Amino acid sequence: MAGSSEEAPDYGRGVVIMDSWPGYDLDLFTYPQHYYGDLDYVLIPHGIIVDRIERLAKDILKDIGYCDIVILCVLKGGYKFCADLVEHLKNISRNSDRFVSMKVDFIRLKSYRNDQSMGEMQIIGGHDLSTLAGKNVLIVEHICVINEHGKEKYRV
Amino acid sequence: MAGSSEEAPDYGRGVVIMDSWPGYDLDLFTYPQHYYGDLDYVLIPHGIIVDRIERLAKDILKDIGYCDIVILCVLKGGYKFCADLVEHLKNISRNSDRFVSMKVDFIRLKSYRNDQSMGEMQIIGGHDLSTLAGKNVLIVEHICVINEHGKEKYRV
Amino acid sequence: MAGSSEEAPDYGRGVVIMDSWPGYDLDLFTYPQHYYGDLDYVLIPHGIIVDRIERLAKDILKDIGYCDIVILCVLKGGYKFCADLVEHLKNISRNSDRFVSMKVDFIRLKSYRNDQSMGEMQIIGGHDLSTLAGKNVLIVEHICVINEHGKEKYRV
Amino acid sequence: MAGSSEEAPDYGRGVVIMDSWPGYDLDLFTYPQHYYGDLDYVLIPHGIIVDRIERLAKDILKDIGYCDIVILCVLKGGYKFCADLVEHLKNISRNSDRFVSMKVDFIRLKSYRNDQSMGEMQIIGGHDLSTLAGKNVLIVEHICVINEHGKEKYRV
Repeated sequence: MAGSSEEAPDYGRGVVIMDSWPGYDLDLFTYPQHYYGDLDYVLIPHGIIVDRIERLAKDILKDIGYCDIVILCVLKGGYKFCADLVEHLKNISRNSDRFVSMKVDFIRLKSYRNDQSMGEMQIIGGHDLSTLAGKNVLIVEHICVINEHGKEKYRV
Repeated sequence: MAGSSEEAPDYGRGVVIMDSWPGYDLDLFTYPQHYYGDLDYVLIPHGIIVDRIERLAKDILKDIGYCDIVILCVLKGGYKFCADLVEHLKNISRNSDRFVSMKVDFIRLKSYRNDQSMGEMQIIGGHDLSTLAGKNVLIVEHICVINEHGKEKYRV
Repeated sequence: MAGSSEEAPDYGRGVVIMDSWPGYDLDLFTYPQHYYGDLDYVLIPHGIIVDRIERLAKDILKDIGYCDIVILCVLKGGYKFCADLVEHLKNISRNSDRFVSMKVDFIRLKSYRNDQSMGEMQIIGGHDLSTLAGKNVLIVEHICVINEHGKEKYRV
Repeated sequence: MAGSSEEAPDYGRGVVIMDSWPGYDLDLFTYPQHYYGDLDYVLIPHGIIVDRIERLAKDILKDIGYCDIVILCVLKGGYKFCADLVEHLKNISRNSDRFVSMKVDFIRLKSYRNDQSMGEMQIIGGHDLSTLAGKNVLIVEHICVINEHGKEKYRV
């Protein structure tokens, strides 16, 4: 089912918010106390991200054919998204008959030092990245997942 | 904090969907296989209902002042919503220092018999409803919660 | 895979608590305030039931071969267990390529009237049970699932 | 309420497994396919850890009096536990009237270089740790939480 060109979903589109969309009323949801007074409305409720991640996990597993994955989480922003995505990947593979092995590693990107741009992006932490050669690597950053292996992109 | 008149949330408003809102793309979320082909878009993703129920639970407990509640679930439609709402009510009370006791009972409403309208709504099942007199009763129906005691209405 | 006699799991065994097991310390978990003082220890933490239900859902779907199911929830005790089980059944089928349709109905069992045993068990509510003939029916009661169709029993 | 000596729970005890405890049967739960054949029993089901983390979150917030917290997650092992703990901390504070602000940072500990022990533990990544002085810092490592501020320890 996966791979036939006519049904390939447009993964790059993601959740689109119309300019005319006024957002959800704040009184519809709970949110942290320290945001009171600073927020006017909710554009993307947390639950939509949860639902979206579940679908992303399904698409990712379909794409890579239930092979092994190395998940490279970009700190700090990506850790919660990464944890949720891994949770869904595990849920799916735990309840299927197929074998998926996942390893998670962490890197940090740095492009500034003492307020001076260093021109290039510096990768901090993580083990020797050369060990990732030839593997399915999912780079998880903020709420954006890039499958380096297939050059496909998933977006929440 | 609650109770000042100028900040009383408009519980009756609920999630409003604009006529111009085209809905979320089906490829953004997972959904049951037997809906394939029959759906065009998603108006309210599941996660929004989850988030909304969490807030409803918070509002309900604030309103009734952490007293005891009898939750009257209207079958069949309301049982999942009821189970989720009770879960959130329990989560909040388990992590607070206040005491809330909840009992759940179930009724079924019937207004037709053999395709003939009976004029009145018939209540089936549940124990003698007269035992509910004077108590805080939450009637949970579909995705609509009515607080009989205070005559206030909550809507998802 | 299911059905071969040598690997048939002993579904009837369930979670076994040894007589010598002192239970988990109360300070390990949260629990409702109104239980304070009345509890000495926790024998089966909530999370074990959650995990167990996930496995039950997987076993049930494997057993009935992803056919359609009618789930008959026995009120009042079974509704939360039923809601959780249906949630897991849906999770699995939503993330698989197979088609499973589930309908949920509710009954109540009554064997006493005005403190007098009526000899027989009376079934209250639910639609005409004769419509269930020939279907896969899961009777969900308390924390015990019985598959009427195959006469197999699942226990938490 | 927190801090009075007579009610201080023995946080250091955690979940104790008796030597005579044979563990839970593998057929009771789901687990990743790649563990099949390598496991004999389950000592601590996942759900117990979930329940335990919920209580830890409650204890932590009670202890630090709903002040601001910096959570220092020790990679790689601690990230999932950290994500779950932060989730519970946020759940509690979102549904309470008190204000808690949480920041999460990540470090990695290294005591070996090329298979040679370096004598001391080296801290990699994270921002300048001197910025943590005077703050409530939760160091989250594997499944063990240490409150540096109060020198108290929480264990799952």
